Amino acid sequence: MSQHFQAKDPKFREKCIEVFEKAPFVSHLGIKLVDIWPGWCETYLAIKTHHLQQNKVIHAGVQATLADHTAGAASGSLVKEGTTILTAEYKINLLRPAKGELLTCRADVLKAGQQLIVTESQVFAQNQGKTTLVAKAIFTMAVVSEF
Amino acid sequence: MSQHFQAKDPKFREKCIEVFEKAPFVSHLGIKLVDIWPGWCETYLAIKTHHLQQNKVIHAGVQATLADHTAGAASGSLVKEGTTILTAEYKINLLRPAKGELLTCRADVLKAGQQLIVTESQVFAQNQGKTTLVAKAIFTMAVVSEF
Amino acid sequence: MSQHFQAKDPKFREKCIEVFEKAPFVSHLGIKLVDIWPGWCETYLAIKTHHLQQNKVIHAGVQATLADHTAGAASGSLVKEGTTILTAEYKINLLRPAKGELLTCRADVLKAGQQLIVTESQVFAQNQGKTTLVAKAIFTMAVVSEF
Amino acid sequence: MSQHFQAKDPKFREKCIEVFEKAPFVSHLGIKLVDIWPGWCETYLAIKTHHLQQNKVIHAGVQATLADHTAGAASGSLVKEGTTILTAEYKINLLRPAKGELLTCRADVLKAGQQLIVTESQVFAQNQGKTTLVAKAIFTMAVVSEF
Repeated sequence: MSQHFQAKDPKFREKCIEVFEKAPFVSHLGIKLVDIWPGWCETYLAIKTHHLQQNKVIHAGVQATLADHTAGAASGSLVKEGTTILTAEYKINLLRPAKGELLTCRADVLKAGQQLIVTESQVFAQNQGKTTLVAKAIFTMAVVSEF
Repeated sequence: MSQHFQAKDPKFREKCIEVFEKAPFVSHLGIKLVDIWPGWCETYLAIKTHHLQQNKVIHAGVQATLADHTAGAASGSLVKEGTTILTAEYKINLLRPAKGELLTCRADVLKAGQQLIVTESQVFAQNQGKTTLVAKAIFTMAVVSEF
Repeated sequence: MSQHFQAKDPKFREKCIEVFEKAPFVSHLGIKLVDIWPGWCETYLAIKTHHLQQNKVIHAGVQATLADHTAGAASGSLVKEGTTILTAEYKINLLRPAKGELLTCRADVLKAGQQLIVTESQVFAQNQGKTTLVAKAIFTMAVVSEF
Repeated sequence: MSQHFQAKDPKFREKCIEVFEKAPFVSHLGIKLVDIWPGWCETYLAIKTHHLQQNKVIHAGVQATLADHTAGAASGSLVKEGTTILTAEYKINLLRPAKGELLTCRADVLKAGQQLIVTESQVFAQNQGKTTLVAKAIFTMAVVSEF
């Protein structure tokens, strides 16, 4: 987490912010950007009833989507103009039942290569003032030409 | 895929079908059950605009949620009365951009242990009559007491 | 598994066979090639005492190395002259305790892209004439220039 | 990494140290214990020619075995008398080519449950005085009765 990355595209913030507004599934879920800088991104999601499992726990699919989109933005902060990133694969460990009124996510790039970027996301649940790490995921992102 | 599993709970179908109806995020997305028998499950999801990425591809989070819920049902078909399953972790490879009007998913249990069940899901996109494997995921499910 | 792949390098077999002979850790362990064709590879390893865990089970590291090397060869069968493959990441599920006198492995390419190849390996243990699937792994391979 | 864990078995250190000596594949490779306390473990491996790939990079199988064994010991430090741990699955990202004369590994438990323990390992290569993070892995460990 102590690495210092340099953005290659001076407009990386505008580009990443745009994705939060233009991606239908992301805005439909309600994912919001906190901040983004070269190599990291933070987001949050206010939980509503339709984000839950039958047992009141926040659905793994909601946690994974938040982790994925935040990791995508963190990775996208490091690519050159004219390129973008695609999630090639990820693994997520659901560490504890996610309960509460808010999810927050922090993504940090571990390694930024020419073709591949490896990024980690941590998902936290806020429940009545208490914050708990509920999921951790690691992503392999492919750097591709914009299409 | 050639394994033959035996259900331990004679009411496994009712129990699994109920989850499709009672899990808010699953019904909110629109995931529907095709069929479920001991060790496997099939589902589908009719794609709407709010399931998409900014580039018209079906969002990875939608694919992952479908894969996860279908794997959960397949795994749940094999547990004893009074127990249920939780997704401990999974890994998903997004093999090709998912485009089209329908996603289908098939989940097959690879190994059913006392504490852990390992299950694979394949996600297919139907685009103008053509079916393509777009994602493959493998899940570790924990068998826990019903809560 | 029903896909038909075409080799791009007519010398793919010689190149892949060479790696089995020249990679010190592979020959040190004792991994042998059964056969290789475009998109798949099969290997085996005769088990010796030094491959075991303290509890007589074949060490996960041995299974993973066999799975990785076989997946690498299957993937390498599909790349152009002057390029080679590197394992970017993998996930392995150790399904059952691996016991016996022989491990065999079959790797099949799931998707061959320009930059990334996704390949699965299955590891089987032969114990007194009985064959059991003991591990399943999925690999993301990066296609890189030969170095 | 800031969590404080309590050992449940007062003899956890003796038990974990013993595994380093009694596991044939671990001693055959040359993996050595640096130290172990509740929730973490550190190890190293002096690199020899037979640990290498054909291109002089340390084989992924060597890195994975070191990561796995160290994570196993860290997880094992937290289980009750009469129980032990088995690696159910792991995912490893090979971040950079591993070159040098020494590998070191640090494993930290992320979550210790009754049935499952989730643990991360980081593998570092020391090359002529320079230390580089070369691999990161995350493990799901099953807690089982000693056998």
